[in-house]
Amino acid sequence: MIGAHGHGGLVLRGLKDAPQVELTAISAGRADHLEKLAGQCRALAGQFFSPSKYDDWRKMLDLAVPDIVCVDGPLEQHAAMCAEAFRRNIHVLVEKPAALRLDELRMLEETHRASRSHLTALMNLRYHPAFYAAWQLVQSGALGAVRAVNAQKSYILGQRPDFFKQRATFGGTIPWVGSHAIDWVRWYSGADFERVAAFHSRIANRGHGDLESTAVCNFRLRDGILAAVTIDYLRPASAGSHGDDRVRVIGTDGYVEVRDGQAWAADAGHDGLYPVAPAPAGSLLADFVAQIEGRGACRISAADVWRVTEACLLARQSADDGRLLEFT
Amino acid sequence: MIGAHGHGGLVLRGLKDAPQVELTAISAGRADHLEKLAGQCRALAGQFFSPSKYDDWRKMLDLAVPDIVCVDGPLEQHAAMCAEAFRRNIHVLVEKPAALRLDELRMLEETHRASRSHLTALMNLRYHPAFYAAWQLVQSGALGAVRAVNAQKSYILGQRPDFFKQRATFGGTIPWVGSHAIDWVRWYSGADFERVAAFHSRIANRGHGDLESTAVCNFRLRDGILAAVTIDYLRPASAGSHGDDRVRVIGTDGYVEVRDGQAWAADAGHDGLYPVAPAPAGSLLADFVAQIEGRGACRISAADVWRVTEACLLARQSADDGRLLEFT
Repeated sequence: MIGAHGHGGLVLRGLKDAPQVELTAISAGRADHLEKLAGQCRALAGQFFSPSKYDDWRKMLDLAVPDIVCVDGPLEQHAAMCAEAFRRNIHVLVEKPAALRLDELRMLEETHRASRSHLTALMNLRYHPAFYAAWQLVQSGALGAVRAVNAQKSYILGQRPDFFKQRATFGGTIPWVGSHAIDWVRWYSGADFERVAAFHSRIANRGHGDLESTAVCNFRLRDGILAAVTIDYLRPASAGSHGDDRVRVIGTDGYVEVRDGQAWAADAGHDGLYPVAPAPAGSLLADFVAQIEGRGACRISAADVWRVTEACLLARQSADDGRLLEFT
Repeated sequence: MIGAHGHGGLVLRGLKDAPQVELTAISAGRADHLEKLAGQCRALAGQFFSPSKYDDWRKMLDLAVPDIVCVDGPLEQHAAMCAEAFRRNIHVLVEKPAALRLDELRMLEETHRASRSHLTALMNLRYHPAFYAAWQLVQSGALGAVRAVNAQKSYILGQRPDFFKQRATFGGTIPWVGSHAIDWVRWYSGADFERVAAFHSRIANRGHGDLESTAVCNFRLRDGILAAVTIDYLRPASAGSHGDDRVRVIGTDGYVEVRDGQAWAADAGHDGLYPVAPAPAGSLLADFVAQIEGRGACRISAADVWRVTEACLLARQSADDGRLLEFT
């Protein structure tokens, strides 16, 4: 494990689902994060493992020689950390976004192409029972061909640590918060991105510097499939939950939506809106191990990681520059 | 009354709310619509009025000399019908959109500027109890300053008359269906449009020619207020209702949304999401008469009609051309 910046705790909690995996070593890109991570390990995995602590994550990769590393360092170090793992053919679970700049992303893809590393990202919402049930319904063909995906991410801002306040260390609200929704667009549609037009604004960000409080991103995908992603950090503290994640997938023969953690659908086989039974959650870590061992596939492929990261960064650029952008 | 193409029936049904108004004459832009309108009059207003029938709507304007005309002819005749009314200083209730092309819209605005006609449009959703209650909540200041508006229009397509199948007679899904949602953006935000980026697609329109089955429109408004509008004609016939209209208005201190005809909000004054009591529906026709008589104001001003029509036509052009467009 490197770092405790984002959702690395998901991997720690997932260790119980992957009995082949032993947590052998931890390090971080920041000294205080090593202590935080050590504390998380004691709380969550300490009953089984006593990982070695390394002050230098590169040294850890060299000396502990892990099969898999979870990259959850400061966001601006993700690309360098992944690249070093790829050069050592270590498999990587990376917290999103994998890179904060397009040039970093190109470098990273190239490094990965030359390695034998498997790669996935902590897109944990693909493992959410309602979102996965919605995906299975789409796959069943009951909704026909997907023609549009509308997604919403709305979070409480509160008071955030300083790294949120600068573009160089946060990357922007579209990559950080929007990446989940942009991942849904690709996942549910099964289509590749062609064009993006986005706007964002920093107004009303409660003293959070560069952080964008609102964003809207439109995508055109292959075959004229359309997507709209809306993002905000303006959810009131009184709302009763941290986030308000929603997606609506519109097919030629019906639609499915997820809100409040429950999937609902309408199609020719039912009268009116009906609830979709939640799917078993599954385990990202167990699936990733199965993929490495040639026994299956993780729900988030390396191609997904590259394309969704690119879509986030192009959307951010579109919003920064006030231009419609084409994917290459 | 001219025509029975769209929602003119709202005016007929509204006559009961405006006792000063007498329905004196009817005509249409199409012979079969005159018969349809005459039938509607018999059914809805016949107990009170026996309007004269005119084969030629221009002749009706000259001979019946009405104070107010409702323009609900074929969409491509709206601009000409409104302009003739303006030239005679007749007040106009127009079915949206007021014009199908930007050059027509400019001509119409100019003609209106030189006339004494009051103008409003059949944006009946501003008179819906839940949507109006949401607007009142925004006006109360409980949600702070509006920073984003997300709106959805989703309709069952079914089999439509031929005029839906050609751009020249239908105008496109963004102006026809999206106009309501684009009107909400202006109404709830109270802000003027600055930029638009939109996509639309005709795929899966079930043999409806030019009709777009899906669309997404992003707007940037004054002060970086953002809006996302999604539109589709893919609602399954089994869904249980014709349309699925939704809006979500996000302020600095809370948000309100309308779905399934009910408004819900979250703000500092309440714990969790709470239902917003419906407002009295009000009457567009009665408000319009009050405005003409100097006793009040209609919820949809002439400035709203011009700017929302322009926003629809620019969004359509953005989607046609694949370009981000600026408002002048």
